[in-house]
Amino acid sequence: MSNISTDLPSKITTDIDFDKPGVQHGALTMPYSHNLSPWGSILMPVSVFAGGTGPTVLLVGGNHGDEYEGPIACMKLIRELDIDKLTGRVIVIPALNYPAVKNGTRLSPIDGKNMNRAFPGDRAGTVTDMIADYVQRFILPLCDAVADIHAGGRMMSFLPTSVIHRLADARHMDRTLEAAKAFNAPNCLVLEELDPQGMLDTAVEELGTLFISTELGGGGSMSVETVRIAYDGMRNLLVHMGVLSEPLRKNGDTRFLETPDGAFVTAEQDGILEFAAELGQKVSAGEAIAYIHDIDRPMAAPAVYRAPLDGIVMHRHVAGLIGRGDCLSVIAVEI
Amino acid sequence: MSNISTDLPSKITTDIDFDKPGVQHGALTMPYSHNLSPWGSILMPVSVFAGGTGPTVLLVGGNHGDEYEGPIACMKLIRELDIDKLTGRVIVIPALNYPAVKNGTRLSPIDGKNMNRAFPGDRAGTVTDMIADYVQRFILPLCDAVADIHAGGRMMSFLPTSVIHRLADARHMDRTLEAAKAFNAPNCLVLEELDPQGMLDTAVEELGTLFISTELGGGGSMSVETVRIAYDGMRNLLVHMGVLSEPLRKNGDTRFLETPDGAFVTAEQDGILEFAAELGQKVSAGEAIAYIHDIDRPMAAPAVYRAPLDGIVMHRHVAGLIGRGDCLSVIAVEI
Amino acid sequence: MSNISTDLPSKITTDIDFDKPGVQHGALTMPYSHNLSPWGSILMPVSVFAGGTGPTVLLVGGNHGDEYEGPIACMKLIRELDIDKLTGRVIVIPALNYPAVKNGTRLSPIDGKNMNRAFPGDRAGTVTDMIADYVQRFILPLCDAVADIHAGGRMMSFLPTSVIHRLADARHMDRTLEAAKAFNAPNCLVLEELDPQGMLDTAVEELGTLFISTELGGGGSMSVETVRIAYDGMRNLLVHMGVLSEPLRKNGDTRFLETPDGAFVTAEQDGILEFAAELGQKVSAGEAIAYIHDIDRPMAAPAVYRAPLDGIVMHRHVAGLIGRGDCLSVIAVEI
Amino acid sequence: MSNISTDLPSKITTDIDFDKPGVQHGALTMPYSHNLSPWGSILMPVSVFAGGTGPTVLLVGGNHGDEYEGPIACMKLIRELDIDKLTGRVIVIPALNYPAVKNGTRLSPIDGKNMNRAFPGDRAGTVTDMIADYVQRFILPLCDAVADIHAGGRMMSFLPTSVIHRLADARHMDRTLEAAKAFNAPNCLVLEELDPQGMLDTAVEELGTLFISTELGGGGSMSVETVRIAYDGMRNLLVHMGVLSEPLRKNGDTRFLETPDGAFVTAEQDGILEFAAELGQKVSAGEAIAYIHDIDRPMAAPAVYRAPLDGIVMHRHVAGLIGRGDCLSVIAVEI
Amino acid sequence: MSNISTDLPSKITTDIDFDKPGVQHGALTMPYSHNLSPWGSILMPVSVFAGGTGPTVLLVGGNHGDEYEGPIACMKLIRELDIDKLTGRVIVIPALNYPAVKNGTRLSPIDGKNMNRAFPGDRAGTVTDMIADYVQRFILPLCDAVADIHAGGRMMSFLPTSVIHRLADARHMDRTLEAAKAFNAPNCLVLEELDPQGMLDTAVEELGTLFISTELGGGGSMSVETVRIAYDGMRNLLVHMGVLSEPLRKNGDTRFLETPDGAFVTAEQDGILEFAAELGQKVSAGEAIAYIHDIDRPMAAPAVYRAPLDGIVMHRHVAGLIGRGDCLSVIAVEI
Amino acid sequence: MSNISTDLPSKITTDIDFDKPGVQHGALTMPYSHNLSPWGSILMPVSVFAGGTGPTVLLVGGNHGDEYEGPIACMKLIRELDIDKLTGRVIVIPALNYPAVKNGTRLSPIDGKNMNRAFPGDRAGTVTDMIADYVQRFILPLCDAVADIHAGGRMMSFLPTSVIHRLADARHMDRTLEAAKAFNAPNCLVLEELDPQGMLDTAVEELGTLFISTELGGGGSMSVETVRIAYDGMRNLLVHMGVLSEPLRKNGDTRFLETPDGAFVTAEQDGILEFAAELGQKVSAGEAIAYIHDIDRPMAAPAVYRAPLDGIVMHRHVAGLIGRGDCLSVIAVEI
Repeated sequence: MSNISTDLPSKITTDIDFDKPGVQHGALTMPYSHNLSPWGSILMPVSVFAGGTGPTVLLVGGNHGDEYEGPIACMKLIRELDIDKLTGRVIVIPALNYPAVKNGTRLSPIDGKNMNRAFPGDRAGTVTDMIADYVQRFILPLCDAVADIHAGGRMMSFLPTSVIHRLADARHMDRTLEAAKAFNAPNCLVLEELDPQGMLDTAVEELGTLFISTELGGGGSMSVETVRIAYDGMRNLLVHMGVLSEPLRKNGDTRFLETPDGAFVTAEQDGILEFAAELGQKVSAGEAIAYIHDIDRPMAAPAVYRAPLDGIVMHRHVAGLIGRGDCLSVIAVEI
Repeated sequence: MSNISTDLPSKITTDIDFDKPGVQHGALTMPYSHNLSPWGSILMPVSVFAGGTGPTVLLVGGNHGDEYEGPIACMKLIRELDIDKLTGRVIVIPALNYPAVKNGTRLSPIDGKNMNRAFPGDRAGTVTDMIADYVQRFILPLCDAVADIHAGGRMMSFLPTSVIHRLADARHMDRTLEAAKAFNAPNCLVLEELDPQGMLDTAVEELGTLFISTELGGGGSMSVETVRIAYDGMRNLLVHMGVLSEPLRKNGDTRFLETPDGAFVTAEQDGILEFAAELGQKVSAGEAIAYIHDIDRPMAAPAVYRAPLDGIVMHRHVAGLIGRGDCLSVIAVEI
Repeated sequence: MSNISTDLPSKITTDIDFDKPGVQHGALTMPYSHNLSPWGSILMPVSVFAGGTGPTVLLVGGNHGDEYEGPIACMKLIRELDIDKLTGRVIVIPALNYPAVKNGTRLSPIDGKNMNRAFPGDRAGTVTDMIADYVQRFILPLCDAVADIHAGGRMMSFLPTSVIHRLADARHMDRTLEAAKAFNAPNCLVLEELDPQGMLDTAVEELGTLFISTELGGGGSMSVETVRIAYDGMRNLLVHMGVLSEPLRKNGDTRFLETPDGAFVTAEQDGILEFAAELGQKVSAGEAIAYIHDIDRPMAAPAVYRAPLDGIVMHRHVAGLIGRGDCLSVIAVEI
Repeated sequence: MSNISTDLPSKITTDIDFDKPGVQHGALTMPYSHNLSPWGSILMPVSVFAGGTGPTVLLVGGNHGDEYEGPIACMKLIRELDIDKLTGRVIVIPALNYPAVKNGTRLSPIDGKNMNRAFPGDRAGTVTDMIADYVQRFILPLCDAVADIHAGGRMMSFLPTSVIHRLADARHMDRTLEAAKAFNAPNCLVLEELDPQGMLDTAVEELGTLFISTELGGGGSMSVETVRIAYDGMRNLLVHMGVLSEPLRKNGDTRFLETPDGAFVTAEQDGILEFAAELGQKVSAGEAIAYIHDIDRPMAAPAVYRAPLDGIVMHRHVAGLIGRGDCLSVIAVEI
Repeated sequence: MSNISTDLPSKITTDIDFDKPGVQHGALTMPYSHNLSPWGSILMPVSVFAGGTGPTVLLVGGNHGDEYEGPIACMKLIRELDIDKLTGRVIVIPALNYPAVKNGTRLSPIDGKNMNRAFPGDRAGTVTDMIADYVQRFILPLCDAVADIHAGGRMMSFLPTSVIHRLADARHMDRTLEAAKAFNAPNCLVLEELDPQGMLDTAVEELGTLFISTELGGGGSMSVETVRIAYDGMRNLLVHMGVLSEPLRKNGDTRFLETPDGAFVTAEQDGILEFAAELGQKVSAGEAIAYIHDIDRPMAAPAVYRAPLDGIVMHRHVAGLIGRGDCLSVIAVEI
Repeated sequence: MSNISTDLPSKITTDIDFDKPGVQHGALTMPYSHNLSPWGSILMPVSVFAGGTGPTVLLVGGNHGDEYEGPIACMKLIRELDIDKLTGRVIVIPALNYPAVKNGTRLSPIDGKNMNRAFPGDRAGTVTDMIADYVQRFILPLCDAVADIHAGGRMMSFLPTSVIHRLADARHMDRTLEAAKAFNAPNCLVLEELDPQGMLDTAVEELGTLFISTELGGGGSMSVETVRIAYDGMRNLLVHMGVLSEPLRKNGDTRFLETPDGAFVTAEQDGILEFAAELGQKVSAGEAIAYIHDIDRPMAAPAVYRAPLDGIVMHRHVAGLIGRGDCLSVIAVEI
């Protein structure tokens, strides 16, 4: 990361002073010149609560624009955090890929980019690049921990889970596991990213900073339960990090899961998807978990998809239509 | 309906002979000339099982293209109906608005039309019109009962229910109630359509024919349970009508519901939707059931939407984004 | 008009009671079912001020969605009308083609229709048709006069003018001329519509009701002056009709203009438009008023367009690009 | 056709005087108001050559916008017709669906309509409707014969042929056969239209007027040979009708063909199309004429399509991609 | 700029020989391969007038494609420049972002790029990049001065002004000021670019070459006056640089303006824009200059935007609709 | 090519083991995350036939997605290659730009990229980049010869020809000429690429590997003859390389052609294209080969395009519409 410095200014400006004590609600203002707004800009909301000399935690929603638990829980936190109970600093970005959140799509409608593959960003790049660059160079260095709330989005659905990575550094791993326990989601998936390049996760972890993410619900919607998990989890993280002075909100223990090799099931044809197992259901290797039907040949047997291993249905494709190459399901096993 | 006759031929042709005994899997072939297929056509699958001299039942899926329980359960029935157990005729159309089903959208991508507002159709109209005309003039007259399987589609979610209408004719009403009990969905909504013009429901009921519909699940997806309700319900209807000789598949009793005046809640602003009550939950008049958040003003209190009456949450808007004028929720009460 | 009755209800509902005294701000709610809002609706604002037993005047903005003087002046009036000074009823619809106004386009983005060619409308038609039908059957019969504020829109620019029609009925014509004088725009164009079918103008005039329109500014923008003309004109009309008790707002006399045969100049090729005369300029027949340049042949002489008659430049095409068949300019003469 | 009169004026105007002797090159001007041209119009070229008191022949190109032999041969004729050799009147419309021709598509990009299904048109309809209405009411009544030059367009390819219909009236049929012989295309297809409603053909023939059409080449292109057939054919028709005084241009005899029941082969799956027989090739019933390959399963045998009867390959789908329901080929037999 | 050399050839070819005396009208031909033109190219017009051994001036229009004074004045100059009065060389590019000019949009429709952020370009990049690279490497090195005619474009409107930059080099600054006086626009804005990377301005000034730009009119249109300013200004620059031998065209003195910190006013919500002050009007800090109205709440007070400082309204957003983040207005002060 | 190594893994995975003897039909699986498939992938078919210790030949179709001879002939080969007759290894990729082939377009619909300008690719780039990177780093190093089957695609048509490049290395050139003779297409065009950067051709030739390409037919279609040339040519190349043990399929001798400077004719205006010479026709310099007509001025003489030199018509633009800058024709001469 030696090539990342704050020497060059960002093109993004802000009315937020990250060093000022107290509560600030402001925006990152990024230039965005286009046919209908030659000297236009985009205003992405940021709130800062600086209540003591303790650590700094960054809370992020809307990394993908069709995942709503993050924005909702972050906004609720912005309205409900009591500065008097804070012993550190909280930075809240409820809609990190702001154009995508306004559009309700995973990717930015402006540049088609995935915010979670855009780090460390580019100060002279597109809007997504500029945001990533600003976060990388001007916000992450301030932070001791980062929570990034993801959900299934429009096309996927998950058994509600927090997500952490297997980290090479044992102390980093231990601190992360402790944070995940404090976060207290019903499940915690421990992942090894195959291709971590460009993720916010990677940008944070490479700085040695604590990182925790989630996969909650899906279908481009939300539920009372998944918003609660995100909200309580973020508050718990603040408590755990010594930034917020209140009791942990416990709701049972967290089950730790992992996805062995072969856990991902890919669709091999287009068609109408019928799931034969629900999220969270225990399945045995070889058991039928889904069918793909061809509406043009209703009398023909559908393609059968089977569990690749014994485990729990962790993820399913949501939409009624599925395409060749789409991820149909993921099976997880308890650690 | 005196202006509907079979004197003029449809532009649709078919390889199905509705009068022939036995099992036939064929298609309605409708001309569709466009820039990329000047002499093109669309082939919509139809199956017929004629096993005895008993009555005729029409089973329909895919009236709206993003509701999947209908196509899946119809295709399963097509594969599993045993001609030897039939004492009448079953006509199955798994994808009534075939172009919409292929596209995964409520409306036809060809003409933008809602099949369920296109009846009695038009033989010289667009594709949707031609299908409605064919069904109206050449299929409905053959039928003693019709089941039309709807679900929430991409944007709505429902407590699983069958749906019937309040009918002026008492005998028609009684026969319909009996059929709904046999259908055996967990709930049955008894509706008074405000503007029934153009619906398949109306086309069927005006002929004095039995009609039953459903609203199952939603989010443009399916669940094991909702497919089962559709499948068992259609088999039960066949049994009830004396077309299929097997026992009814009972799964508890059906609760009858209705939606009083004022049961529909409409969104009055754009924003991010948070639901505070789940489908099926009992709510009291004035209780908060949802919030709409403005991501541009995260510190501002969200707009609160309250239950208009004591009842059960029957329907919710699914998507994380909602717009002014969208139907946010419907509250039903037990009859 | 014998086929227009209020026997069939509109599909549009409203929280406005047109017969109730006092001030009401409400909406027409029209059903609009589409892929992203199956049970959706559109809410079009309407305000009513009923202050006495005098006549009723309807004030309309946003008949075309890219003409802003109407919506702005109507909204200003809604905020500033003093119910205590009213001796009759004022109905204000600031955005008649509401979807077009939200979209900033002449035509509705929903059905592509021109509101001003949609009368008398169709209760079972598209959104534009439903609005026209409601206005035709339920609002126009209440009215003694109607003002419909038009402007140049995105592609045209006008010398600010009120517009009235030559009417066959002499008394109707006289009353209209008097109203135009009271309206007190700097100019008043007296038109003979070549093809009046479908216009709000026609719908109003066929009822024997007073009608006055405008063409103000353009370029899809507004100016301080054109908003003032619209606002003062509408107040003046209320005063003139005996609905509002205040002095007329006079700003000089109105010049009456007409457009003789041949007054319209049509572009005969595509290219870049250069105007050689400004709006309001006096030109002589044969004088060059515009050039069309071909950017691919910069060394070639541009096509020259000449004034077809002695007169005043009343209208010009705004955009830098013009196409074969576009209206390039209109020349008017004083009556 | 009793409901078609010239009582109502068209919205289309023209600078052509169809009754004036000599040569005129003008346009039909039709109003077309849209977001980018509120008072816009479309100018469709028409030429008239009136050289004597003999009959009138209408020559039409561009009925479909992606068929180029018609426009090219008509423009060539417009430049080369010698008024001094004329003994009657020739009306030439080189681009009947002018917006489609400008766009290079079968259908009009403005209203999506097929000109050849729009007759008798509608004076108050869309642009395509207005053109059909004008031709129906103001041009066809002037004519003794009509030639309408079609070709395969972008998606189809034909063995070059003239096309006439089987007509109930024997004299009408005989006159048409004589005209087809004079037209002298290499082939002449004698068709029975299954659904003739809306065609220019029908509009002409219902008036008892002579009608001849063609299907020439295809692939959205042209060849030297197919332009020659169209050009010579139109000149020959003028000679045959007694309108042009020159010798017939003979190029061998015309072979008469017809398409028996079952001659049309429809694709039943999507895929990559390989033709196994060329246009004009003699094939035997059951012989493989085409394959459809699935690129996702290259090792699988392609679907085989076979000639439905002994005959000549008259038509083939051009594009490399074909879809379920597309017309794959047509086999013709000699009469 | 050490990395910019002419060692690698451009992919652009031209029939222009920049070293040849006399008048040449030619084109830059750049390869542009796409689905509808695999071996296609784009031909961008360039004219060269080489009349003596004096300096070289480059005149540019169409840097943004919706600003028309540049193309019109450049084409007029191309037609009217008298080679016999030239004592140097003039290179005229009337449409620098040629695809954008043909499309009437600020940005290129081919690659979505802003020509004025594309310098120094990329020989192997997109079309916009290739043009910038060619100008940077093969044209700018020939030049002693460059005029780049900008206007407000479709969405902005300006008090007509020339524009120069504050330059670090005093002599460069003085020469630029002298040129601006000679250019003789009514106003001259002296700017400090916040982020000059990628601009043609920067590319020219980094070479130590004289650069002058303009902001004239707007709304995607032109006026007689703004075309005159551009045309006279360019001729005056040629005279001032010693390239054209004729008197300066003086039209009063130039007023010098600047935009202090805080001069830019940004919209903070979406809505309908009403301007309360006209371009050129003197306003005082705190004075209302614009309102943004919410058509969904016509009875609510609009958002008020106030002048941030005492000054002159230099710029306004044109369109009736404005969005959060759009530049609403710029206030300038006299130097 | 020193910067190309296999040190970094591709993001593409495959079930193919290139080192395994025998026949394998598998796929390259590349990640493709987008709004409708967050964890999606694309499966591009690859087949490997390893039958001996001899050399390796790569056969490629679908480098451009609208050229069908390649995919069809490759699929036929995949089905018909007899492993027992192989003495080396054959790798077949029937659809190199798989997304483009599925879409029937030259360029990928995913990233708009031309596969044949994407080499050496980018492992972290778009889908097209990832494919090019995989082929460059993991497949080309295995190969002794590569055949890449191109055709005219939707917009161009060619006299069927193989294509080779003039190579600096004499031995490389000789080997290539021998291979072209063995390939035995009716013509062989010997080309000097003006801008070879990014081509598969270049990537292969820079490794010293044998490369042969084709241009066959066009119009986005295929013919029996052009598929035969591709199929026989690829088999012949296998025989020639010592990979397949069977006789060469000879069909007459190959004529060698080249395109001298000035052989390319470019359209200078938009319009309707009429070709006056057919593919393969001998033309003399100055002879009219095509016309461009202006449908808006049918009476005007069309623009005439003449042969730039004596030669053979090698290529023509197919579509009836042509645009300024499009390649109209290419004339070749015999070597």
